[in-house]
Amino acid sequence: MTAFRSLRLKKNADRRLKAGHLWLYSNEIDTQATPIKEVEAGAQVVVEAANGKAMGVAYVNPHSLICARMVSRDPAQGLDRSLLVHRLNQALALRQRLFDKPFYRLVHGEGDLLPGLVIDRFGDVLVVQLNTAGMQAVLPELLDALDKVLAPSSVVLRNDTSGRRQEGLEAGVEVVKGELPDRVLLEENGVRFVAPVLDGQKTGWFFDHRVNRAWLNGLVAGKRVLDLFSYVGGWGVQAAASGAREVLCVDASGPALERVAENAALNGLHEQVAVGEGDAFEVLAALKAEGEEFDVVILDPPAFIRKRKDIPNGERAYGKLNREAMRLLGRDGLLLSASCSMHLAPERLVDVVRGAVRHQDRQGQILFQGHQGPDHPVHPAIPETSYLKALGVRVFRD
Amino acid sequence: MTAFRSLRLKKNADRRLKAGHLWLYSNEIDTQATPIKEVEAGAQVVVEAANGKAMGVAYVNPHSLICARMVSRDPAQGLDRSLLVHRLNQALALRQRLFDKPFYRLVHGEGDLLPGLVIDRFGDVLVVQLNTAGMQAVLPELLDALDKVLAPSSVVLRNDTSGRRQEGLEAGVEVVKGELPDRVLLEENGVRFVAPVLDGQKTGWFFDHRVNRAWLNGLVAGKRVLDLFSYVGGWGVQAAASGAREVLCVDASGPALERVAENAALNGLHEQVAVGEGDAFEVLAALKAEGEEFDVVILDPPAFIRKRKDIPNGERAYGKLNREAMRLLGRDGLLLSASCSMHLAPERLVDVVRGAVRHQDRQGQILFQGHQGPDHPVHPAIPETSYLKALGVRVFRD
Repeated sequence: MTAFRSLRLKKNADRRLKAGHLWLYSNEIDTQATPIKEVEAGAQVVVEAANGKAMGVAYVNPHSLICARMVSRDPAQGLDRSLLVHRLNQALALRQRLFDKPFYRLVHGEGDLLPGLVIDRFGDVLVVQLNTAGMQAVLPELLDALDKVLAPSSVVLRNDTSGRRQEGLEAGVEVVKGELPDRVLLEENGVRFVAPVLDGQKTGWFFDHRVNRAWLNGLVAGKRVLDLFSYVGGWGVQAAASGAREVLCVDASGPALERVAENAALNGLHEQVAVGEGDAFEVLAALKAEGEEFDVVILDPPAFIRKRKDIPNGERAYGKLNREAMRLLGRDGLLLSASCSMHLAPERLVDVVRGAVRHQDRQGQILFQGHQGPDHPVHPAIPETSYLKALGVRVFRD
Repeated sequence: MTAFRSLRLKKNADRRLKAGHLWLYSNEIDTQATPIKEVEAGAQVVVEAANGKAMGVAYVNPHSLICARMVSRDPAQGLDRSLLVHRLNQALALRQRLFDKPFYRLVHGEGDLLPGLVIDRFGDVLVVQLNTAGMQAVLPELLDALDKVLAPSSVVLRNDTSGRRQEGLEAGVEVVKGELPDRVLLEENGVRFVAPVLDGQKTGWFFDHRVNRAWLNGLVAGKRVLDLFSYVGGWGVQAAASGAREVLCVDASGPALERVAENAALNGLHEQVAVGEGDAFEVLAALKAEGEEFDVVILDPPAFIRKRKDIPNGERAYGKLNREAMRLLGRDGLLLSASCSMHLAPERLVDVVRGAVRHQDRQGQILFQGHQGPDHPVHPAIPETSYLKALGVRVFRD
């Protein structure tokens, strides 16, 4: 058993921890008693309430606003190989209960009681993001634990995340175990895809919309579909596989659109799926000018709100996007409007849709309120772990 | 064209209507210009902004806090047979797109632009609730419109709703068209049920949890399941049909439990489904005292919060229920915690679950955030049309 140094909280600063939260902010530390600036980033400490009672073990980053994250409620149990194996087994058991194929988010950070750690699984290939100094510090133990629990053929570190910059960690992408196959494949809702795990967005694939895509797939047969911000075609190619008559995938990235074509071909759908490169707003304007009309429009943009201070501008951007996109819908159309901005409250996205519907003097019916899939569990005490919204909206003329 | 008398709004009282809402409150009326107390309950009026601009047609109830509800944005188009046919066709087109069998909520009031009207469809049998004086006033036109759009074999009025009492309308249950078959059948998620349309709760069946039940059905194979507040077995019998090893349905109503047994037998599941009569909290205590343990517990209680003033007491009741129920879960269990109280915000239900998990020093993962199904469309400008919550929570020991 390692002896951890202690980190003393100010009076009442233990309330959030008692409620189940895992984070400590730098202004909650009694820095007189325990000067956190002297603690090395990534080191583990025993967190003590103001009265000295030990609350558990956390890892620390004195340079971060979230200066410590709890890893255990047992003051004698730090984040080591043994705890990592335990938590990975708990995470794996859940996914094996949820899914019959090995393609999913295996670890969703705080939601799996492993703060700062993200692991996406593509069969025998694992893609890992270490978003905090504390997780970075246990990388050897983590790789060891993954070998014991899953024995992956290869492990990729996608350490090019914004979270790492905030923690003062270096960015980089590296294959730390094995060799990557030529193509990393996955299957979602019965459709096959190639995931660009080395150079795509995030880990290469967004598993979080699985359930929302499944919902939409049930309503696209025979329809003409526009997939804006298509990335590699997660929505669009699945729509085509679900019987959509014609799908147009639009993205600003040429390489992403090459992947769309590849993914369409992989499923024998190259004739149904077209691609268009360009800025979303410019493409929307051009399509409108050409008199194009769609039965279904999918809006799954990148986060427009990354920080709290961006909320007003971000909400305006969501508003404009939804208004412009809705203009392309036919008389009785379906809009799938998503947001991955944690700072956009669910009821604000409803209001964005409301405003867009009214702006065109149409009527709207929200048929579906979707969230992140079950392999992205929400920690009930940490609202920040719930970030994804997807509204399915019927838009019609009265 | 009927000439409607007018109802003048106070200054700025048209803002909510412009935003898409359909309701007017009694304190928003310029009663000097247009004394609403002189208008007969159920009569239709042209709503005018303070500047005299006509906003559309509403029906009125001068005795209700919501004193008028918009039925049309065309000042020349009142709620008549023609508009009812149009709206019913719009509602039917949506359901036919969503479902391949004729068992669903056909009209969800404001969400289908038909304020105060609820219609559930069980094949050729329609069960109708007229919750406002305005809807009551057009009953002949509505029955006529239903004949044109659907030609149902029978129509039941379930006019024993609390909404009618508030509107000063008489309560009663009546078959107004045809004869009811001996048993009114429905199918949900592939499982057959008998709906007690004359003497059951509400219209006899709760279609709103269809999607949430489908989600849970995927996770119950081989499990021992407790369905509290089971009513006629919507959750429990579907769980048994999805492979649950053993299901215990608990309800305070003996007749409801007779229906559970009937529904289980209808699907050849009488051996898997047991029933227990009693108060939910007493049954929970008794089960705990007997050392019983379940893999899955379903909590779908009646609304504990009916009015805003009930929020504090109601939240305490949800808290107690979730705490007591969670004690019966095994080491790695699944809780389905629902609330149909519109006044309980989604994040408050998350907090109820959080508190229950912490109370037992367990860990929780919210895997699923469910809402009412797509045949209960939410009006984007009317938050009151979104009422149902269902959380799927993994509860485990760390």
